[in-house]
Amino acid sequence: MNVTRREFGRLTALGVAAQFAPALNAQSGKKIGYAVIGLGRIADHFMRGALLTGNSAITGLVSGHRDKADKIAAQYNVPQGSIYSYENFDEIAKNPAIDAVYVALPNSMHAEYTIRAAKAGKHVLCEKPMALNVAECESMIAACKVANVKLMIAYRCHYEPIQLKAIDLIRTGKLGKVQVIESAYGFNEDAGEWRLDKKLAGGGPLYDVGIYCLNACRYLTGEEPTDFSAYASVVDHDGRFDTVEENLVWTMKFPSGAVASCSTTYGAPMDGYFRVHGSKGLLECTSAFGYENVRLRGFYSGTRIDESETTPDPYQFQAEADHFSNCILMNKEPQSPGEEGLRDLTYITRIYRSAGIPI
Amino acid sequence: MNVTRREFGRLTALGVAAQFAPALNAQSGKKIGYAVIGLGRIADHFMRGALLTGNSAITGLVSGHRDKADKIAAQYNVPQGSIYSYENFDEIAKNPAIDAVYVALPNSMHAEYTIRAAKAGKHVLCEKPMALNVAECESMIAACKVANVKLMIAYRCHYEPIQLKAIDLIRTGKLGKVQVIESAYGFNEDAGEWRLDKKLAGGGPLYDVGIYCLNACRYLTGEEPTDFSAYASVVDHDGRFDTVEENLVWTMKFPSGAVASCSTTYGAPMDGYFRVHGSKGLLECTSAFGYENVRLRGFYSGTRIDESETTPDPYQFQAEADHFSNCILMNKEPQSPGEEGLRDLTYITRIYRSAGIPI
Repeated sequence: MNVTRREFGRLTALGVAAQFAPALNAQSGKKIGYAVIGLGRIADHFMRGALLTGNSAITGLVSGHRDKADKIAAQYNVPQGSIYSYENFDEIAKNPAIDAVYVALPNSMHAEYTIRAAKAGKHVLCEKPMALNVAECESMIAACKVANVKLMIAYRCHYEPIQLKAIDLIRTGKLGKVQVIESAYGFNEDAGEWRLDKKLAGGGPLYDVGIYCLNACRYLTGEEPTDFSAYASVVDHDGRFDTVEENLVWTMKFPSGAVASCSTTYGAPMDGYFRVHGSKGLLECTSAFGYENVRLRGFYSGTRIDESETTPDPYQFQAEADHFSNCILMNKEPQSPGEEGLRDLTYITRIYRSAGIPI
Repeated sequence: MNVTRREFGRLTALGVAAQFAPALNAQSGKKIGYAVIGLGRIADHFMRGALLTGNSAITGLVSGHRDKADKIAAQYNVPQGSIYSYENFDEIAKNPAIDAVYVALPNSMHAEYTIRAAKAGKHVLCEKPMALNVAECESMIAACKVANVKLMIAYRCHYEPIQLKAIDLIRTGKLGKVQVIESAYGFNEDAGEWRLDKKLAGGGPLYDVGIYCLNACRYLTGEEPTDFSAYASVVDHDGRFDTVEENLVWTMKFPSGAVASCSTTYGAPMDGYFRVHGSKGLLECTSAFGYENVRLRGFYSGTRIDESETTPDPYQFQAEADHFSNCILMNKEPQSPGEEGLRDLTYITRIYRSAGIPI
């Protein structure tokens, strides 16, 4: 999908995406140098995405596995002196090639490394979920404020053109009044993954994938939910779900009267989607939260829509890196700041409480 | 879709559909004569469906509009003496051509006409929802028991081949363990319809269309839900929703740990569907609760499925009439007896209570 200048202007006016079209980037020529903390799968997507931007570069790596780091350093031309371990991480403070960090660690380490990066004077792009709980989120926001560095939560979907199109159609009233939103996202998680360990993950599928549905209901409507009700369950007593839930379904109510019904699981295949039922139409987004092939179908006020994003992965990471780098370069607030991550953790806490799960 | 003998045997063994294949009908040659009470849209579908069976006939009409009744009587060869008004309805007791009634009235009249028909010694096929509340359902069951007549609730989907296929795949474990079910059904209701009047309808979209989702979650799993949580809302303050809810979302928990997340509305287009997420696969049924074009897609244990029912409307009404007539002829209990309708009303009551709506 190509977002036209006119559409882009409308989206920007909605405060949805300040920058994702490269043509609108700061033209300073300066690139923001990122140290990537945690070299797992998502870090690979991010590094490839950053490389596609005109304003971002990979200038540091932080890993517990030096071999792995060395290989990646060679790929991205990161000098040996810019490879850090978790022990000597704080020395990034002295590295002028590193402007920011990208935190791609297990959830339990987000707060620690965000705060240590802030203390080292580096801007922070942190993966979702922002942290294990509200208190950690608040500490992270405070630490970045004190250090006068920017903090952005890596909500890819906020910068994804198809999602922006859906937001635009809804917020400009094309769909009429939003009545009901349905959304789900889940997958069958393998035994042994850190996501199944509450100490590392904070919780089950709601933290990892259900958060996309929660966040989508919020950005689609532009409203904050006021009421939450949830049921969690474990069907497979095979050791995987000793500390986190397997399934979670929940409903939410918004100030306008719109209501949402959402599902997440670690026990079954569940392609991410959202479906917005408005008084004048319907929008359904499939592969909504994946890295590519996001598709929007529906009808409203006599118009049919069927649009797909054909740009391959890592275009979402490119947009995300581009946005944050631009915010740093232009001294602007990111569209998905720490406060946005904090809000989701506040709601996640209420959803778990409703399901009788301590958090 | 053709259900093979082998599949049919398995479905019968599951207690799902005692009879829907005409080849298995009672071969007595005797046809059950139905008096249709209420000559609205659904009655038309039923009459055309009954005509396609080998065991059912339309032998009486009950209406407040004699002109309308006369026209329909001519179509179905119903003698003038077998046309009744609501006032002289009880005289059907003396009409030997009428074995049973089909109650297709607004919800508030289901109990009264079921009980009057039972007292007249006629079997009763009653539309869903069975009645306004649990107490009415219990009176209807008691009246039919005392009169020694059969009572069936017209749950079309229990007799629909695609639904039976889904039930079979789930109950025989092809999908693995059921984790999450999603289901929704709704539409944009016009002002002035009796469905918007709580006195006639009992409640909003949950009574009329949400009940399909509730019932589907039950017949798909073969389990009874134990916990219910719901939010109801009104978005359009245009007079339509002065007595009933506009939107309702709810979640349910089942003894196995399966959880369900459902939505219904009178304020937006919302095609009926269900989606069952099992540990080994996914089944999605679209146009699930409509009169035709029911389609089942998904995958399980390495197999892909995409089956559609191509028989046109009124095949579901045909199956329903065929089943009830056969039960009467063979003196067997219908697969969807009064107790099945009562269960849904019990759950509907709990859903409304959770949403803070008195019932």
